[in-house]
Amino acid sequence: MRDVSIIGIGQTAVAEHWDKSIRDLAVEAAQAARRDAGIERVDALYVGNMLSGELAGQENLATVIADAAGLLPVEAIKIEAACASGGAALRAAALGVAAGAHEYALVVGVEKMTDYLTDGVTAALAMAADADYEAGHGISFAALNAMLMRRYMHEHKARHEDFAPFSINSHRNAARNPFAMYRQEITAEDFAASPIVADPINILDSAGICDGAAALLIAPSAEARKTRRPPVRIAASAVATDTVALAERRDPLVWQSVADSARLAYAQAKLGPKDIDLFEVHDAFTIVSVLSLEACGFADRGSALKLAAEGRIGLDGDIPICTLGGLKGRGHPVGASGAYQIVEVVQQLRGEAGAAQVKDARVGMAQSVGGSGSVTVTHILQV
Amino acid sequence: MRDVSIIGIGQTAVAEHWDKSIRDLAVEAAQAARRDAGIERVDALYVGNMLSGELAGQENLATVIADAAGLLPVEAIKIEAACASGGAALRAAALGVAAGAHEYALVVGVEKMTDYLTDGVTAALAMAADADYEAGHGISFAALNAMLMRRYMHEHKARHEDFAPFSINSHRNAARNPFAMYRQEITAEDFAASPIVADPINILDSAGICDGAAALLIAPSAEARKTRRPPVRIAASAVATDTVALAERRDPLVWQSVADSARLAYAQAKLGPKDIDLFEVHDAFTIVSVLSLEACGFADRGSALKLAAEGRIGLDGDIPICTLGGLKGRGHPVGASGAYQIVEVVQQLRGEAGAAQVKDARVGMAQSVGGSGSVTVTHILQV
Repeated sequence: MRDVSIIGIGQTAVAEHWDKSIRDLAVEAAQAARRDAGIERVDALYVGNMLSGELAGQENLATVIADAAGLLPVEAIKIEAACASGGAALRAAALGVAAGAHEYALVVGVEKMTDYLTDGVTAALAMAADADYEAGHGISFAALNAMLMRRYMHEHKARHEDFAPFSINSHRNAARNPFAMYRQEITAEDFAASPIVADPINILDSAGICDGAAALLIAPSAEARKTRRPPVRIAASAVATDTVALAERRDPLVWQSVADSARLAYAQAKLGPKDIDLFEVHDAFTIVSVLSLEACGFADRGSALKLAAEGRIGLDGDIPICTLGGLKGRGHPVGASGAYQIVEVVQQLRGEAGAAQVKDARVGMAQSVGGSGSVTVTHILQV
Repeated sequence: MRDVSIIGIGQTAVAEHWDKSIRDLAVEAAQAARRDAGIERVDALYVGNMLSGELAGQENLATVIADAAGLLPVEAIKIEAACASGGAALRAAALGVAAGAHEYALVVGVEKMTDYLTDGVTAALAMAADADYEAGHGISFAALNAMLMRRYMHEHKARHEDFAPFSINSHRNAARNPFAMYRQEITAEDFAASPIVADPINILDSAGICDGAAALLIAPSAEARKTRRPPVRIAASAVATDTVALAERRDPLVWQSVADSARLAYAQAKLGPKDIDLFEVHDAFTIVSVLSLEACGFADRGSALKLAAEGRIGLDGDIPICTLGGLKGRGHPVGASGAYQIVEVVQQLRGEAGAAQVKDARVGMAQSVGGSGSVTVTHILQV
């Protein structure tokens, strides 16, 4: 298997893009990644997207993007793994390069959600849950996560305000990221006053609906060393799954697919949690950050809230998370978020994260979680 | 890159499965493929599907199937390339095995279409066309292909009845395939009397809406030789794209993605059209068979109808096509069809095609076409 590196990154601002279609966003990010790498050649396009069919009336999306980006007759496929689609697209593309089928593969994560009514989007997002056993009963994603949060608060005698530091951290970091959607810092008082979405989850626990695209150009590491930007090596790429329905889990507070995927990634990279300089967590809800940090070995069971309370998740903490805003602060264009996370880890490892730079970052981890922890993609990147 | 072979195949009957959900169908095919191979182990699941979100309200489909098939915590992703999704899933899985990331990868193509009203399905299928420039104007897939057929008849002075042999051939072969949906033979008179769908396309030009799943277990060829069934080698696997909108093509009767994908496949396999013993053509409409045979080098431009008229596409002809019924006769569960084609080529190369057996078949080609020729996946299999 050939070693693979990231040689170019591109992203659109995350926003309500009323004036741009899904293909416009994808093309903007794709061309930015090619310009960044100084490489025109693309041998294959892997698109990460969850909802183009439901929301934009467009399947065959990878070919639409290949066409719009001037990449024809390039190989093109779309990858769907719910909210983890962007990370999964990088995984599939990296395997293609590792196998020797492509020299330069382009990954584009893209989602356009704001053209639609909020309950339409909420219903579409619930397609990541089990259609027959969960969504069919009318439960939304916020409601599923609310049950997890409630259970966590019960088991660990936590209060809702204990989750505030996660949201505050994401917003603080987003304020330093020109591509982020929610660039205003928030306080514990703001968090406490935020309206409930699905009790106990409030607006500031939740990542927002938005539009955006992020892109990555990858190549064999041997080739990557000849390109203009410092290449960032993909030290690990791993996917694991768990039951789709929460009710099927032996213990809903153990996120097994997150733990399995992290374990596989650590083994591939020959690294452990202590070696990770920053961690792009899938903070779709604050409870997701908590369960992910525990499942990945950064905190013992029931103790991730303490990690945040002690300020250890900040840019100068021992495990900085959501360093450019995370899903909460940057925004969560679902199928694109996994690609944004990788772009942001690359920014950090290149030392190009500006005011949000983590000092001496050499190893970064990014993790995309689909459904309520039913599929997880973990990448470890290294310079 | 490791050489990869198919070691197990499974399929459900193609039908209106009122009593089975999309996950039931997928599990049935998956378990059949594992039984056929005599192998329990699965390291990764690649699902080919186009419309589970639109029609079944289910994204995150690969994890749903991994869960239902008892494969957790296996790596699982869904691949979408419109009507070519099944073929594209095999391509991605084969790259994963070739790279050394998986030893045993399972490919499942699945689609469930008959639970829905026909115009809902027609609208969903139109998502393979360009949402902004084609489908947004109300054009259906049958209508797009009708324009191609009309143009072909005009340029080559062909009559509609000249297309009948393709439909007759597919039905004749389907009658010998217990898994096929349309097992009745038809005559030229039936074809002539068939009601128009979109002039000049009639019902018997068109593949039907249906439900089904097909599965493939693949492994490195070195491992495959140790398994119980005769392994079938993937000699070539190639994807190419063309403009999504028909109006953007320089010449709509040249199916460039089909030609490009076949050219790449021939080069990988070091074979040409003369070496192909049977060809599973994507006969979603009779015109697609015609354009594909010409694009792949089996007939000169304007002469594929003659190939059929001379009986050369039958089981004992020099280029048998749709040997187990094709999309027309077996049925076309969209995202599953590409996987069915591969299953059928394997049946032929193993000598297990029963009354539809092509004599001395050693090399088979299968081709999945997405949209109106906008994305094409070609595989060449060999024993």
